[in-house]
Amino acid sequence: MTFTLTARDLKSSARAGTLQTGHGLIETPVFMPVGTAGAVKALHIKELREDIKAQIVLGNTYHLFLRPGVDIIAKAGGLHKFNGWSKPILTDSGGYQVYSLADSRKLTEAGVTFQSHIDGSRHTFTPESVIDIQRSIGADIIMAFDECPPYQASRDYVDNSMQLTHRWLSRCISRFDETDPKYGFSQSLFPIVQGGSFRDLRAKSAETISAAGADGNAIGGLSVGEPEEVMYEMTSLVCGILPKEKPRYLMGVGTPVNLLQSIALGIDMFDCVMPTRNGRNGMVFTPKGVMNMKNEKWKNDFTPVDEEGILAADRTCSKAFLRHLVISGEMLGAMLASLHNLAFYLWLMRQAREKIAAGEFSPWKDQMIKQLSQRL
Amino acid sequence: MTFTLTARDLKSSARAGTLQTGHGLIETPVFMPVGTAGAVKALHIKELREDIKAQIVLGNTYHLFLRPGVDIIAKAGGLHKFNGWSKPILTDSGGYQVYSLADSRKLTEAGVTFQSHIDGSRHTFTPESVIDIQRSIGADIIMAFDECPPYQASRDYVDNSMQLTHRWLSRCISRFDETDPKYGFSQSLFPIVQGGSFRDLRAKSAETISAAGADGNAIGGLSVGEPEEVMYEMTSLVCGILPKEKPRYLMGVGTPVNLLQSIALGIDMFDCVMPTRNGRNGMVFTPKGVMNMKNEKWKNDFTPVDEEGILAADRTCSKAFLRHLVISGEMLGAMLASLHNLAFYLWLMRQAREKIAAGEFSPWKDQMIKQLSQRL
Repeated sequence: MTFTLTARDLKSSARAGTLQTGHGLIETPVFMPVGTAGAVKALHIKELREDIKAQIVLGNTYHLFLRPGVDIIAKAGGLHKFNGWSKPILTDSGGYQVYSLADSRKLTEAGVTFQSHIDGSRHTFTPESVIDIQRSIGADIIMAFDECPPYQASRDYVDNSMQLTHRWLSRCISRFDETDPKYGFSQSLFPIVQGGSFRDLRAKSAETISAAGADGNAIGGLSVGEPEEVMYEMTSLVCGILPKEKPRYLMGVGTPVNLLQSIALGIDMFDCVMPTRNGRNGMVFTPKGVMNMKNEKWKNDFTPVDEEGILAADRTCSKAFLRHLVISGEMLGAMLASLHNLAFYLWLMRQAREKIAAGEFSPWKDQMIKQLSQRL
Repeated sequence: MTFTLTARDLKSSARAGTLQTGHGLIETPVFMPVGTAGAVKALHIKELREDIKAQIVLGNTYHLFLRPGVDIIAKAGGLHKFNGWSKPILTDSGGYQVYSLADSRKLTEAGVTFQSHIDGSRHTFTPESVIDIQRSIGADIIMAFDECPPYQASRDYVDNSMQLTHRWLSRCISRFDETDPKYGFSQSLFPIVQGGSFRDLRAKSAETISAAGADGNAIGGLSVGEPEEVMYEMTSLVCGILPKEKPRYLMGVGTPVNLLQSIALGIDMFDCVMPTRNGRNGMVFTPKGVMNMKNEKWKNDFTPVDEEGILAADRTCSKAFLRHLVISGEMLGAMLASLHNLAFYLWLMRQAREKIAAGEFSPWKDQMIKQLSQRL
């Protein structure tokens, strides 16, 4: 995996680059749609490819491990073969989902024991097993196993948790180095910076993670309830420590404004369920601000959902029709809003990339943030 | 509206034809996907047009009247403008939904008073109002207001109900004749044969309906719980009375086998929620039989959903992946199964049409019915 910086913004830490993977080139900054169980909610694989032009999709190890199970994915020849998505895939380590979804979890030095939220069955994730699972899923980018402490956690808890994450990283790296890709394309391991909202812990974690010399580095444990300024402060601090020549991935973030602010701090990769989850709830992101499609004001508004027409469907579908679909609970409402929102997120990333290359990122970003913060 | 018979089967009453409407030509036999609230569940409008090549879509007057409401559809310039579907639309009269969905309905000579199943609001449908509503929706084909008695109804009830339906038809025709299309294209009114499962009542109703001289005629009140043989017996009887030179529409029917058997009896038009409803429940129709995607046997079957590949997605999506999506409750499962099932229904109609033209319908039908009845 090769990351090449192609442009830098002079007024911020924003940069544009390309990431070469076994399934093609990714242009950064990039947003990765979340395909939890091997499918992005409410989107056809063809729409990911042709309509929103996704470059890479994220899969959740926890979900895929529970259903359909690693044996089935391996028999299919990996997730790419199983779901028909032929561009890069990144899988998270499952850690975050174990903490947020699974029942009766028990954390030890060895790993985490938990009960499936689906059927209560008991399972164990260890740094080693999580690497094996991601090898079998066939992710182009494999995430290290970490603990993500809650925002309210004490300094002591966060410190101990971070040290555990670092010890687990060593075990992840050993297992990764001892094993080979299963499907003929290379896989990369990204470690994850933790440390909560404590500057010194974040700095220490960023140094430890940098020293691992991985193909790319991730920042975890943010956007978990802390104020936005704290998120930006931690992101900025960590970006200043992580190597410049490697891609930086801010996990689970965020709103369109969060993305632009974080690009300015030096982030290259993002994922978030917001465009699809909010889409299913009738919230639509546009270059001019956010629309709640349930709002009475769209009832008789027969203008297109998005006048700019990022997506072909946006030019044919009116606000009134989309509102009707959302209010009526029609699946097509969730399908159109999710498709639109992802198209918008990816358009925003392409725009950011162009503006960085053209030396116009910072003023453009300031203007966009004003627009994006509007409630229409 | 002009109906032209283009071919007849010599061994059955099957026929092929073309129906010229203000929104283009419909080739019959035809299946009309059900777009209850102006959208076919789990399908994009683009998929209706490009992937399954639907020729005409059905809308439910009851649903559209309640949500978004006739005023909004009229302001949009009719349903075609509102939802972006530019081919023909048929709307039912709302009668069937009032009886099956609405609360505290009260039937009088004047019409039906009922409470919305959505918000309990009170409304009245009369033969006149239902024509006005369908004029405003902008349906190419408007259905007369009828009462659809349950299968268990007594002969007396069915007889009285049928006579009411006939009196309502006269009022529908008067209102239809007194009013004009609202959006610059012509609209046709189809009356509905009732009469339950009583041969003499069905015959009487078919004669009354034939005498109305409408552009097309429908058969209602079947597939409401009666044995299949009774449905076929009534359909055959009525088809023998309805004018040959007008299209015949069998409402709310049915399985792929029902469609082929009814084509053989002289039916030209069908609608049914089965392909989408069953699709959402993980049932998939194929030329070789029916698959329940929840079945364990598909777990490791990585062959395409449909080897014949009626639909592009069928060739890329495996049975194992579709099973995973259905079992996981992923929207994509419902989307793929619904799209596939509708594509299959429409393919079956095109095949029937070709076989009728080629003089090969009857043996083909017998062979297909054997295949379609298989549980895979």
